[in-house]
Amino acid sequence: MINEKYKQMLSAKSVIRELSEYATNRGEEIGYENVFDFSLGNPSVPCVDEYTKAVIEMHENMDPMEIHGYSPSLGNTSVRETVARSLKKRFGLPYETKHIFMTSGAAGAIAHAVRLVTQPGDEVITFAPFFPEYMPYINDSGAVLKVVPPRLEDFQINFKAFEEMMNEKVMAVLINTPNNPSGVVYSEETLQRLSMFLEAKQAQYGHEIFIISDEPYREILFDGKKFAYPSKYYDNTISCYSFSKSLSLPGERIGYVAVNPKAKDADILAVMCGQISRGIGHNCPAATPQLAVAKVIDKTSDISVYEKNRNLLYDALVNLGYEVVRPGGTFYIFPKALEEDAVAFCNKAKEYDLILVPADNFGAPGYFRMAYCIDTEKVERAIPVLEKFTKEQYPNR
Amino acid sequence: MINEKYKQMLSAKSVIRELSEYATNRGEEIGYENVFDFSLGNPSVPCVDEYTKAVIEMHENMDPMEIHGYSPSLGNTSVRETVARSLKKRFGLPYETKHIFMTSGAAGAIAHAVRLVTQPGDEVITFAPFFPEYMPYINDSGAVLKVVPPRLEDFQINFKAFEEMMNEKVMAVLINTPNNPSGVVYSEETLQRLSMFLEAKQAQYGHEIFIISDEPYREILFDGKKFAYPSKYYDNTISCYSFSKSLSLPGERIGYVAVNPKAKDADILAVMCGQISRGIGHNCPAATPQLAVAKVIDKTSDISVYEKNRNLLYDALVNLGYEVVRPGGTFYIFPKALEEDAVAFCNKAKEYDLILVPADNFGAPGYFRMAYCIDTEKVERAIPVLEKFTKEQYPNR
Repeated sequence: MINEKYKQMLSAKSVIRELSEYATNRGEEIGYENVFDFSLGNPSVPCVDEYTKAVIEMHENMDPMEIHGYSPSLGNTSVRETVARSLKKRFGLPYETKHIFMTSGAAGAIAHAVRLVTQPGDEVITFAPFFPEYMPYINDSGAVLKVVPPRLEDFQINFKAFEEMMNEKVMAVLINTPNNPSGVVYSEETLQRLSMFLEAKQAQYGHEIFIISDEPYREILFDGKKFAYPSKYYDNTISCYSFSKSLSLPGERIGYVAVNPKAKDADILAVMCGQISRGIGHNCPAATPQLAVAKVIDKTSDISVYEKNRNLLYDALVNLGYEVVRPGGTFYIFPKALEEDAVAFCNKAKEYDLILVPADNFGAPGYFRMAYCIDTEKVERAIPVLEKFTKEQYPNR
Repeated sequence: MINEKYKQMLSAKSVIRELSEYATNRGEEIGYENVFDFSLGNPSVPCVDEYTKAVIEMHENMDPMEIHGYSPSLGNTSVRETVARSLKKRFGLPYETKHIFMTSGAAGAIAHAVRLVTQPGDEVITFAPFFPEYMPYINDSGAVLKVVPPRLEDFQINFKAFEEMMNEKVMAVLINTPNNPSGVVYSEETLQRLSMFLEAKQAQYGHEIFIISDEPYREILFDGKKFAYPSKYYDNTISCYSFSKSLSLPGERIGYVAVNPKAKDADILAVMCGQISRGIGHNCPAATPQLAVAKVIDKTSDISVYEKNRNLLYDALVNLGYEVVRPGGTFYIFPKALEEDAVAFCNKAKEYDLILVPADNFGAPGYFRMAYCIDTEKVERAIPVLEKFTKEQYPNR
């Protein structure tokens, strides 16, 4: 008999996907260049040439059996070694091959991490605003996702609300820095306070509480800032990484789990991921992108465009009187709508061919997200439209 | 807290993997060419040149953003269309794009299919001998896998035992034809009888019972036989396919779910897979192999070597007095060991550097599997060794 749960999920469509489809259709009417589509987080700069060259060279020169044979169940060993070496060099933690498990992007990484450290019925806490896909990512594992309301002034962690929600059924805390949808990067202070709080709770409850750190935007940082790497602040941390954003490879589904070498049972957690895989149909990401990303491990696409776009949009929004926190990274910005109902607000914007995403299901009703992974030229053309929309629709502010 | 279930799975190592590692290590001592390694089902012929050319051409000529952008959540639409057209042409069923869901190999396909048609606590029945990974594939979804004992004379379905095991909690039947580990292909008669039986049970219980048909060996058929395609015999069938074996691409993790167009709710089952994906971290197979397999959809690697190897091994085993069913496809053969304890039998064979897999956890104790996806030259050299082993160890038969 058909599983009704998944059947019912069909009627609850993704707001982002719907808006993105709307933008595509509208583009067919008036030319896509005239649609100011801020809906989707699809990178707008190509992958590095070296990635393309690596794929071509592999296919021209390597034995096909060697490229396309089964990877070991934890991922290609030399690729895991390369990842460990890179993390060790960048973040100063003693990563080794055994701490790395290759995955199908960050989604695959989180699917494994949550099963590693929770049992069905356990709780996982995350912080608003948050990526709405966390709901199925966590809840379908049998654990239960709880969402701490946002700290609106800067979108760091609302510790008061967090403390109220904390209880001994919480086995993991899911964080995302730099954050989708706010663009905010957690400060050192936030991570230190989080660490101290969790250390105390671990002692109080007598069990580990893991941080699952979703880090696909780790490299997209602005203003020359250095990334505050969560694992440096808290031992029981599992990093979930994807090359989707930093290398503009979202379709290739390539990422990894990196277990903090100082975590409890650090030596077996990545190996356990190989067991979890058997039950959720993974069995390693594809061989080709594994081998190819290893050749460009410390490179990124030309992500400078995102900072240019951030600057333009942030300034424009502030000039127009929007309440908005300045993003420290990613390619998102998360202003407050000009009326309480962000859906109504975004619907009005649509009339101007401005495609904005209302944030009700990001855990921050009344806000909206703009994904500015688009050409700078289009951002520049969008600003007068945003101005026109704002002044015409909300003249009395 | 760490999930103990997966921790405990670490100690129950896979017999196949262990033997394969043993063979590799032994190869380092005496030269791998002297180890008669029949342990692993890793294809021994390269993928077709056209696949390699397709990947190179894509990377040389296409816009990287177009190759590497996010696939839609059900898979690249043009690839799904190509798959549907190919299936329609080959098997005469009215497949359309909407019936196809792209997956990370057959493992990914089964992970989705089982969640489509079962709830936790439901039962799934499969038939021995069976691929041992079915245990975690099914049980980790929350459903419970039950195994019907084998019909030893021909490894078709043991209907008597099946009828005894059948009950109204059974929501799906998982079949694998051509079969790993027996190499046997289900006959038309078997599939007709299975269909009639399930139709009657659907009527009796008042709910659908789906066939989940695991078909990665579908193209590897011997003696010029035509494949009896399960969906042609039973409407509520979900085919799970992988290009791993037919195109020798196991590392690329590329396959699909194909919903029988006549199945109950056929129009929404593939779409529902997109919802299931969100909870188990899939989000589509990699973009590159999706696009590249579509260009070689009706091709296979040069799989004639497997038939040659089957002929050599089957004849040799029969001449040596083994009880063995003649495989109709795959690259496996599944003889009865010469003593009751197949583990002891395979351990003795190891002394001759013959690596055979005891079949206790394939649901057929006393049997062993040989994977003959190796060079024919090596099969030829293995036969006198098999003879020596058999005559020295079992002289009184």
